[in-house]
Formats: sequence, C-alpha cells, structure tokens
Amino acid sequence: MRRVSETAVQNDHEAPASAFAVAQPLRETGLAPAAGRSPAEEARTLVAQGGLGTLSTLSEDGDPWGSLVAYAEMPDGDPVLLVSTLAEHGRNLPRDGRASLVVAETTAPGTDPLDGGRVTLAGRALPPDGPEEAAVAREAFLRAVPMSKHYVDFGDFALYVLHVDRVRWVGGYGRMDSASAEGYHAAEPDPVAPGAGHAVQHLNDDHADALLDMARGLGGFDDATAATTKRIDRYGIDLWVRTPRGGGPCRIGFAEVCTAPGDLRAATVELAHRARA
Amino acid sequence: MRRVSETAVQNDHEAPASAFAVAQPLRETGLAPAAGRSPAEEARTLVAQGGLGTLSTLSEDGDPWGSLVAYAEMPDGDPVLLVSTLAEHGRNLPRDGRASLVVAETTAPGTDPLDGGRVTLAGRALPPDGPEEAAVAREAFLRAVPMSKHYVDFGDFALYVLHVDRVRWVGGYGRMDSASAEGYHAAEPDPVAPGAGHAVQHLNDDHADALLDMARGLGGFDDATAATTKRIDRYGIDLWVRTPRGGGPCRIGFAEVCTAPGDLRAATVELAHRARA
Repeated sequence: MRRVSETAVQNDHEAPASAFAVAQPLRETGLAPAAGRSPAEEARTLVAQGGLGTLSTLSEDGDPWGSLVAYAEMPDGDPVLLVSTLAEHGRNLPRDGRASLVVAETTAPGTDPLDGGRVTLAGRALPPDGPEEAAVAREAFLRAVPMSKHYVDFGDFALYVLHVDRVRWVGGYGRMDSASAEGYHAAEPDPVAPGAGHAVQHLNDDHADALLDMARGLGGFDDATAATTKRIDRYGIDLWVRTPRGGGPCRIGFAEVCTAPGDLRAATVELAHRARA
Repeated sequence: MRRVSETAVQNDHEAPASAFAVAQPLRETGLAPAAGRSPAEEARTLVAQGGLGTLSTLSEDGDPWGSLVAYAEMPDGDPVLLVSTLAEHGRNLPRDGRASLVVAETTAPGTDPLDGGRVTLAGRALPPDGPEEAAVAREAFLRAVPMSKHYVDFGDFALYVLHVDRVRWVGGYGRMDSASAEGYHAAEPDPVAPGAGHAVQHLNDDHADALLDMARGLGGFDDATAATTKRIDRYGIDLWVRTPRGGGPCRIGFAEVCTAPGDLRAATVELAHRARA
C-alpha cells in the first residue's frame, strides 16, 4: 500500500507557476524517497478517526440532499448508518440507495480547514444482507455511537451499509487523489493516527532543534532557519521548512514503519540522532 | 420572527413515551411562555456563524456527490461558493446547478455532536447574475475566505450563488423544523451568537447559584438541585435542571430582546435579580 510521496505542490490550476513557488532542498540527500500513506490508507484513516459525516442522498425529485449523520464502520471500511424515516435522508434511502458520505478531519482552531483532510465515499446504501451482516452492523453502530442504544430499536429507525464504490481523498491544498474501491476496502487505517495530533504538538513545542536538524541533515535544506511538523504518520514526518529563500515542504521517512502510536517516539528519536550524525 | 419555544421534547418516533420522559415544573410560573428563535433565525444564525460546509451536487450519472467547501453569504443569506473545475463539484455545477449545503455548528469536545445544530440549505447554484451581483459575491467571498485572493482569479475557478428554496434546521435531539425560503431570506442572524459560547461557559463556571435560582424562581422547578445553561440566544436561556424527579429542560425568557453580545450580561443579571425577588 506504500507509495512514494509527492512533496512538490501540484499545479494543475490555470494559474501562473509563481503562485505555487516553494523552496527546494539545496542538495540531494542520497536517501531513498520517503514513503507516505496511499490515498486508500489516507481515506481509511480519516474514516476510522471520524464518526460524524455529511450524507448526500437523492430527494424524491432527484435533487441532492445533505444531512449530518453519525456512522460506524464494517470491518472493510464500509460505513454503517442508522437512519430514521422522520429524517429526509431516512425516507430517501429506501427509495434510492445512491449516496455519498463526506468525513472531514477536525482541524485545530486557527488553522485553515481547507488545508485539512477529508474524504468522499460514494456508493449504494442497502439494508444489511441477512441476519449475520445485520448483527455485525448493529454491534458496530452501538460501539461507535453508544447513545444509539436508546433508539436503535425504535420502529422508525433502520440500519444501512453504504457499499463504497468510489473514493476521493483530499489531504489539503495540493494533496488529493482517488482510490479504488478494492484498495479502500483492503487498506489498513494508520495505527498511529490516534496519537498523531499529540505528537505533532509535542515535536513543535519541545523539539524545534531536532526538527531543524532533520530538515538540514536529512532533508537537504542546509540553509534552513526553522522547521515545524505539519503531519506525522506511520511512515514519516511532513515538515514545513523556513529558509532565506522562502518556505518549502520536506518529507522525512522513518527508518522503520510504525505499527502503534507508541512507536512514534523511538522513530523520531532515531531521526534526530541520524540527522546529527 | 419570534415564536413561542417548545420546551417539551418531541416524540414522533415509533417508540415508548417513557423513552422521552423528562421532569416538568412543579407549578405554573405565571410568566408568559418564553420566546425563542424561529427556525429561520436558527438557520440564518448557523450559516452566519459558519464558513465551512458540505456541498451535495449531482454527478454526471445523477448520483449524489458530497464535498467540503468554504462559503460566504450574500446579504439575504444565500451562500456564495468559489469552485474549481479541478474538483468534481466544480464540474457538476455548470452541468446541473441543483445543490444543497449542510452547515454544522462546531460542538465542544466531549459533547454529543448529534445534539448540536445544523442546517440544510437546498436550491439551485447559478453564476452571479450580471456584474453587480458578481461584485457583491466576489467581495463577500474574499472577506469570508481571505486566502482566496491567491486563487479567485485562476482560470479554473468560478463563483456561484446558491439560490436557497428549501431550509431544514435541526437544533439537536427533538429540536428541528423547516423554514420557508422567504422566511430564511428575511430573518436576521442572532446578533448575540458570537458571544454565546463564552456566555454559556461563564454562567456555568461562575454563576451556578444564579442559574439554580432562575430554575426555581422563574422556571417553576421548586425542587431543583442544580441547573446548567445549555444554550443562550437573544431571547433567553435554555437550562437543564436537575431534580430528585429526574432532569428536565427549562426555558427562561429575557425581559428585553438583546441586540448585541454585550447585552447578554445585563439581561442575565436582570433574570438573577428577578429570580431572587
């Protein structure tokens, strides 16, 4: 599922290239290009971290209708919904199951939400297929939304599984890609994601020197004056580096892929040691 | 635009009434029923407080497609969008302008987001009608999303105005209603909304005694043991009251309608004095 990340900012816009100018490293580092999460992994990670999304369904006249919903996940990442016929989407789905669900990352206050992650999962929502799938869906929903025990058995509520067949991921400005349905279903949510927000803050608050060393020693930004962590994942760190030539992105890969949030500490310490070596 | 608020929890669900049992006041207070925001005012307030929403459009095959967008507002509350043809919704709108926008309140961490406010605005998105509307839309968008000055003039971006013809507001569990398009366009966003979150926290942190007095003296909950503010608006306060008989909602109206966030302090002090009188 790993792929080489693109640190260059996309410019498919009908716009002057100067609008996207960012500083590049001053030298080749000799390191292999750092791996990053695949779009399918990005999507699975966002969906696993979420719990609340906006569902688009079709009204009786075919107009698109959006509404806020809680969701759970089937083991393959297909969303589970619990909808009431008192809600418009709950009347839409039995008539026409075509639907999409948008899940957006919760961004820190003061940051640009359009530079945050979101994913659109599109497909067809259907009632669970048989008692076994119904039991899995019900249990998943009760676990994801404990309050639902109070209404899951009301007569107007019904469970649906959104069978995903299109996946579009946007990670922020210039970071976006589609994933195949097969890739989405097979991908693993990033296991370090639950600890990533804390790790980013900790690195920026307490380890500015180490980040600067990484940008210089491992990123090839010899003239870096500061570096901050923008994102962290199981494969590495995304830095934003400041230089007298302007700012630029810098991806640093971990020596080993992390498999649990607790691995991030050792992985970043290893980077800092290597940067200073 | 004012209407008498419903403090009783709706029970249209196919469910036992016991699922919705809440404590009622012990006596009539003799006060007029407290006014509350109309659904149209609730919708305008949410849209004015927001800035980010999920847009539902129709893909080429008629499937509903959701995507995260920033929006601004025309003076009548119609959303202004700036979309790129690089995005799927930016290719959908020129072909079929039918769209809806969901704007959800940012809820405090640890609270149930399904008990927060959200609104669906549905209608037809069209390019601005003539240079005058285009100038108003452009200026509104640049003001709402300052970063857009960097891309508003890219060749692949275009402004749209979503002409709202259906409005559905959900304020949380049991609080929901539709508004007419005319009502939505004519309503005023609650001017105290920008200060409401702070006021709720301040009242709960520092004035628990005053809230308890209000629940007893003005709400008729003579046996109240505690009261917390759930919401505050230009017309009054929504309390949640604890009693030995269970918890229940209690709406207390201000003596005068507030017209600015700064009015909330005097309005709540007046309630506290009157409750103790």
